[in-house]
Amino acid sequence: MCGIFAVFNARKAAELTVIGLHNMQHRAIEYAGIVSSDGYNLFSHRGEGIARQVFSSSAVLNRLHGHHALGHIRYSTVTDDPDLERAQPIEGSWYGEPFALAHNGNLTNYAQLKQRLDRPLRSSMDSECIVRLIERGSSKDLIEAVKGALVHLEGSYALCILFPERLLTIQDRSNNKPLSIGTIGDSYIVSSETCAIRSVGARFVRDVEPGEIVVIDRSGVRSVSFAQPRLRKCRFEGNYYSHPSSVTFGEPVDEYRMRLGKALEEHCPAAADIVTAVPDSSMFIAMGYAHSGRSGRYRPVIIRNHYVGRTFIAATQAKRDAEVSQKFNFTEHAIKGRRIVVVDDSIVRGTTLPKIVRQLRENGAKAVHVRIGSPPITYPCLYGINTPTKAELISANKSTSAICSDLGADSLQFLPLQVQKSLSAHPEHFCFACMDGNYWH
Amino acid sequence: MCGIFAVFNARKAAELTVIGLHNMQHRAIEYAGIVSSDGYNLFSHRGEGIARQVFSSSAVLNRLHGHHALGHIRYSTVTDDPDLERAQPIEGSWYGEPFALAHNGNLTNYAQLKQRLDRPLRSSMDSECIVRLIERGSSKDLIEAVKGALVHLEGSYALCILFPERLLTIQDRSNNKPLSIGTIGDSYIVSSETCAIRSVGARFVRDVEPGEIVVIDRSGVRSVSFAQPRLRKCRFEGNYYSHPSSVTFGEPVDEYRMRLGKALEEHCPAAADIVTAVPDSSMFIAMGYAHSGRSGRYRPVIIRNHYVGRTFIAATQAKRDAEVSQKFNFTEHAIKGRRIVVVDDSIVRGTTLPKIVRQLRENGAKAVHVRIGSPPITYPCLYGINTPTKAELISANKSTSAICSDLGADSLQFLPLQVQKSLSAHPEHFCFACMDGNYWH
Amino acid sequence: MCGIFAVFNARKAAELTVIGLHNMQHRAIEYAGIVSSDGYNLFSHRGEGIARQVFSSSAVLNRLHGHHALGHIRYSTVTDDPDLERAQPIEGSWYGEPFALAHNGNLTNYAQLKQRLDRPLRSSMDSECIVRLIERGSSKDLIEAVKGALVHLEGSYALCILFPERLLTIQDRSNNKPLSIGTIGDSYIVSSETCAIRSVGARFVRDVEPGEIVVIDRSGVRSVSFAQPRLRKCRFEGNYYSHPSSVTFGEPVDEYRMRLGKALEEHCPAAADIVTAVPDSSMFIAMGYAHSGRSGRYRPVIIRNHYVGRTFIAATQAKRDAEVSQKFNFTEHAIKGRRIVVVDDSIVRGTTLPKIVRQLRENGAKAVHVRIGSPPITYPCLYGINTPTKAELISANKSTSAICSDLGADSLQFLPLQVQKSLSAHPEHFCFACMDGNYWH
Amino acid sequence: MCGIFAVFNARKAAELTVIGLHNMQHRAIEYAGIVSSDGYNLFSHRGEGIARQVFSSSAVLNRLHGHHALGHIRYSTVTDDPDLERAQPIEGSWYGEPFALAHNGNLTNYAQLKQRLDRPLRSSMDSECIVRLIERGSSKDLIEAVKGALVHLEGSYALCILFPERLLTIQDRSNNKPLSIGTIGDSYIVSSETCAIRSVGARFVRDVEPGEIVVIDRSGVRSVSFAQPRLRKCRFEGNYYSHPSSVTFGEPVDEYRMRLGKALEEHCPAAADIVTAVPDSSMFIAMGYAHSGRSGRYRPVIIRNHYVGRTFIAATQAKRDAEVSQKFNFTEHAIKGRRIVVVDDSIVRGTTLPKIVRQLRENGAKAVHVRIGSPPITYPCLYGINTPTKAELISANKSTSAICSDLGADSLQFLPLQVQKSLSAHPEHFCFACMDGNYWH
Repeated sequence: MCGIFAVFNARKAAELTVIGLHNMQHRAIEYAGIVSSDGYNLFSHRGEGIARQVFSSSAVLNRLHGHHALGHIRYSTVTDDPDLERAQPIEGSWYGEPFALAHNGNLTNYAQLKQRLDRPLRSSMDSECIVRLIERGSSKDLIEAVKGALVHLEGSYALCILFPERLLTIQDRSNNKPLSIGTIGDSYIVSSETCAIRSVGARFVRDVEPGEIVVIDRSGVRSVSFAQPRLRKCRFEGNYYSHPSSVTFGEPVDEYRMRLGKALEEHCPAAADIVTAVPDSSMFIAMGYAHSGRSGRYRPVIIRNHYVGRTFIAATQAKRDAEVSQKFNFTEHAIKGRRIVVVDDSIVRGTTLPKIVRQLRENGAKAVHVRIGSPPITYPCLYGINTPTKAELISANKSTSAICSDLGADSLQFLPLQVQKSLSAHPEHFCFACMDGNYWH
Repeated sequence: MCGIFAVFNARKAAELTVIGLHNMQHRAIEYAGIVSSDGYNLFSHRGEGIARQVFSSSAVLNRLHGHHALGHIRYSTVTDDPDLERAQPIEGSWYGEPFALAHNGNLTNYAQLKQRLDRPLRSSMDSECIVRLIERGSSKDLIEAVKGALVHLEGSYALCILFPERLLTIQDRSNNKPLSIGTIGDSYIVSSETCAIRSVGARFVRDVEPGEIVVIDRSGVRSVSFAQPRLRKCRFEGNYYSHPSSVTFGEPVDEYRMRLGKALEEHCPAAADIVTAVPDSSMFIAMGYAHSGRSGRYRPVIIRNHYVGRTFIAATQAKRDAEVSQKFNFTEHAIKGRRIVVVDDSIVRGTTLPKIVRQLRENGAKAVHVRIGSPPITYPCLYGINTPTKAELISANKSTSAICSDLGADSLQFLPLQVQKSLSAHPEHFCFACMDGNYWH
Repeated sequence: MCGIFAVFNARKAAELTVIGLHNMQHRAIEYAGIVSSDGYNLFSHRGEGIARQVFSSSAVLNRLHGHHALGHIRYSTVTDDPDLERAQPIEGSWYGEPFALAHNGNLTNYAQLKQRLDRPLRSSMDSECIVRLIERGSSKDLIEAVKGALVHLEGSYALCILFPERLLTIQDRSNNKPLSIGTIGDSYIVSSETCAIRSVGARFVRDVEPGEIVVIDRSGVRSVSFAQPRLRKCRFEGNYYSHPSSVTFGEPVDEYRMRLGKALEEHCPAAADIVTAVPDSSMFIAMGYAHSGRSGRYRPVIIRNHYVGRTFIAATQAKRDAEVSQKFNFTEHAIKGRRIVVVDDSIVRGTTLPKIVRQLRENGAKAVHVRIGSPPITYPCLYGINTPTKAELISANKSTSAICSDLGADSLQFLPLQVQKSLSAHPEHFCFACMDGNYWH
Repeated sequence: MCGIFAVFNARKAAELTVIGLHNMQHRAIEYAGIVSSDGYNLFSHRGEGIARQVFSSSAVLNRLHGHHALGHIRYSTVTDDPDLERAQPIEGSWYGEPFALAHNGNLTNYAQLKQRLDRPLRSSMDSECIVRLIERGSSKDLIEAVKGALVHLEGSYALCILFPERLLTIQDRSNNKPLSIGTIGDSYIVSSETCAIRSVGARFVRDVEPGEIVVIDRSGVRSVSFAQPRLRKCRFEGNYYSHPSSVTFGEPVDEYRMRLGKALEEHCPAAADIVTAVPDSSMFIAMGYAHSGRSGRYRPVIIRNHYVGRTFIAATQAKRDAEVSQKFNFTEHAIKGRRIVVVDDSIVRGTTLPKIVRQLRENGAKAVHVRIGSPPITYPCLYGINTPTKAELISANKSTSAICSDLGADSLQFLPLQVQKSLSAHPEHFCFACMDGNYWH
């Protein structure tokens, strides 16, 4: 997963970009980068870690001159080569004019693109191919050159490309990843999520349309169509990835999740006293699940610790399930003697839930029922979500009852696939490939 | 505020202590320290920051040898001298036997104690006086020497003192700060909060009693009384400080807060659509407030960002209310056109709530009603909570309506003092000094 | 001052470049940077500090792929803007082909060049103008484009420019800064000093000629002339800047300094017992001065401390002359009761020698005679040596006897200007501008 | 090897101690520590690295309060346990009075001492035994208690012990390690070397005598004898360890080394053009060797690089003999075609000299003659110098001609043992154990 945030024509553009990236940090935490423009030159800084760390020093921010900026946050993938560049935006040069590109998505024809380019790449990112294709473009018209590059791409790509005095925003025909435009005064914002547009005080205007290039420059906004839409919006943006305060693909995320939770309870009720979530992504699903009161009432008994980070390895060797213990507090007095429904958004590898179930039992739960706010994930995602291989997807390899036994739960139920689909008015406009294997390109 | 966590007779005692401190990190985040014992020598490490950072390296943990350990987390106070030691445990020597002391609370007669000691101290902490008094004890019997030191102390002190083969745990007669004992196998745990006892897999046994010294050694546990109880339990442990999963002073904290929220709504209802909390401390109060449904339904529309930290200064100069923007996301689509009750646990300086109210309005709230889960704080705390001086306490200087106007809210109501008191079966056993000025010593 | 080191067609080109820069670290210690090439892409890393620190991590070196590399070390100048880029090589793009440029020297027409370019620069370095001029070159022939840029430059410039598969090495017509070529196997080395060529095991081949562009590619070496020579070799390379193990402008540096020392003694003898140097740059001058034995014998009584660095500020506030005390040990038993000649290479601001003279006296010297291996520096350098303004040049403002009195020395003598000139076979081929004010362009 | 530096009764005592340690940094670079006293409390800081790094921050220095301070620098030994404390001074408590001890030397009966103490130690340093023995002392008179501890010690120990208002300085009966006293105003300095006394502006007064305890307090200096002298002064202090500007065991070190060099040339001349040193320790030996002119004239052709450090590992994998290349520059134009005598102070493992000889040959030397300023080292040192085991001492395992062949030299000669001994007026007062195996205790 990645996040894109761009600012055009605003004072302190780089600082605003840091705030925007920070408010999408749930999307990716491994790399962060910003390229800014003073109208002539590009200035860049990229690094490992979350945005507020990579851009914590005034010295770094002060060097990101100019009124335009493009930022990116990124998860690395298993195939990343540690000796090659792994952070975006990626810089290039088009007829001597520098540019920088940020990509959310994944190209399914990376191998062919590399062959077409016929030279080593600087990075291990498929996104670099787009930069190199634009650099090679034979047209002297920028939009034509970009369209000439896009024609070779398959898969999923929401893009922002910053030139010294132009910002291009591109949504592929599938609309697989969200990409929205906002404004504040004379400034434009482009963002993967609407919550980040709000975070800098701007107003959401509209989503970038499938197959559309939006060109933003000093004279305003211009729209160019480059492909016929064939919608395949990622259903997991609503189920899991997007922030609950965002409106993704036109849908308020928290409300969608509460609806999802209600549907889950209708199809998979439980005889329980308390409904609780694996914090925080499942909170609204759990609240929806508890809404009718039939399967228990909502009460947070697993409470997330705010001081968890990545450097806590040493101390935790002393304790089994240490990563769960350091991440969550369990409210023993509320759990003891009670039947608990624990709601999670999905099961991927299935490594965390067994520890949570065990902790609930150690705290005296009389019964533990697990309810999952999505169908079983049985196929790897090819479109930019870093799911593991099929061999590591537990639902691709085990039955629900076998997984339930692995979890140590009294019962386990997944949201049925047809119910998942029925939650969207036009399910054919969404991608469910990780659930049903219907890949596209 | 501080937190104490001690382990006696367990493998990897220091590692368990890190986990315990980590699970009380909400109590204090500025300093962390651990002293361990191998039965002969004490080994120590202290540093600035949260426990998982101060103890992130295996090299540091590997040097904390032995099966006993005593840890401490601490907030600095304004009077701290940066050139003096500011982290605990504090080490001393009693007839050649090294020891280390951890203190939660505040001594109200620090000035007299310094005069009595008549020599410069190594630190700027009142707690050092206790160490120096024990060192000077004329008795050759340890318990007598410790009692001889305690007799000079006024104010609030929950203590743990680690000797090479003994752990002393002391609760003052007021029981102002919580201190509990747990066990796991043959090991003993002492902790400021029960949630931390659970976090290392141990079971809560009992609280240390007011006026009691508990002596733990290889032969077991022994209790010594040194003072008649005169209870003054801190009411803010329940209202705010303790973790919701803890049982503090015998009371489950989350349940107390839900009761408090219900009472708040009964006495201070609002004509609203949505009840939301300032995350996370007020969540259970808000859930209690929303319970009846009369004043709106519970919906989290202010969502805490997990990636906030202290190094984010540079970027946020670009935006007004930046610290609120970086800390919270506001769910615009849920706020717009709605009447919102925002519930907070208390108002101290009154600097954050105006920004939250302003953000709610900028997101389109039709009305904003503020409800506070405690009476106005009008007196500084003398017992170890780092509240500001009277001049900075907004409720000590302004009327509720003036504060409401500062907040920019449509209405503001505090939990009435008599309701606050009525929530406890024996209000005379609690300290309400910050609300009513009834100081004690 | 700066240093350039480039490697063409060698395994581990970037690592060799670090070694080369490290062996010229005496030329500049504030910034270091390397750009490497794999034949298609350029990879870069730049940072503050000395080369071995900036390139201390394997991760950084592993990302500098390819068999060609260009490195640069640099002193910042007072006019450097801390918010702009200050490290080289500087990257550019010529018809889509990336390149990187390293510059030793100073352009005397920087203001006009900026006006000509008519746009903001990314850095505060005059060298960036050369990059931008090349980028704008209208010719499609690279050498013509570079020549088209050079025609606008005035002042001093020894350059290396790395393209993916070509290395250009350029010496201006003045030959003011040294630039030499070496080989090892099939690989080429370009270096500011010959000592660095040796340090990677390569053999010196020849200097780049004044007005020459040397083009190195896979097919070999090609020479292009772009200007008539008008030699102005910097005399201070021999007197001070170059490493004693280098052969600069065809002259072995240590031998030149011994000759200089002998001449100094002939014209400025002293009645003394011991001749010592301000380490280390003046060692060979002092050895030459002591050669005849007439003015005392050579004995090091000021001994440099190897553990000095830049982070030693805090401790030294306790002592007057602390920076001299931390940098040097004085051999009291050798100084006491003796008449000392202390030899230094030059006096610029005149701030260090008074402290050395004072230390010698405190160690019991009977007399202190100062002898300087260069004429008074009375004019600022315009050609890349970071001398101060005329107001700060002590010799521009005070007589020799006034300076002697400032130093607290018994006598002070400078190498006479005509003797300085007579040490070179063709003094008209050298620049003495800092001594006689004869500027050129 | 270690270094001790103490200050009694001076403003900024800790800062002066840093300067003193810095000026003995040639003795040890792995750990540095300081304990200061304000007359009541001790304040301490220890760390890994050289003194100016460990004490680079004002925050650290500002916490080392008081007018007395004791510092120590240390090399770790192979037997050091990384999980135990490895830096000095070591702190203890004598009847409730804290103290800190610094030790230079090595106890030959460490195993017995540990057995006698019959409890685990906090550190892996033999020196801790002295602290623990003093803590256990039954006498209430401090000097008696210290003498009671010393009686158990065998081997080599120069000690400083800081109490809140007393500084004890102790030289064992062998006088194996140097320890000197200086004064400045009303302040006292104790130092392993006289060069460090000078470095803080103080004057050398006298050495601590063998078998003497010097007690420094506010009333002045008092001397107590605790053992009959039996002198075994370390001969390698003069040959190698001490700074050339020091006067060690009453002997100016640089003059001793020049005498040594002359004797070496008399007994081991060479038919050569140039005499050069392996910098810097052998410089004065080489100057002495060249004095007569019979075996070549002195000329530095191996020049030490000032920017070498420990973090340079990554880059140097590209080159054979890289550690020599990064550490030294070789003056090719002076070496080519010449016969070179290279003088070193000793051969221990014999790993560096082969690389130097090889470099000299690669730079064109016609012949390379190696002359060593000490006899073959054939026995490990038991008295605190970190020499390797006998198996690693090359001279203990190979003949001179075999070593010469390993070096790749044309000839190799060691200073004969009887000449080494004849350089001291009373050779029986020196320890030559590493050369002749005559151990003592």
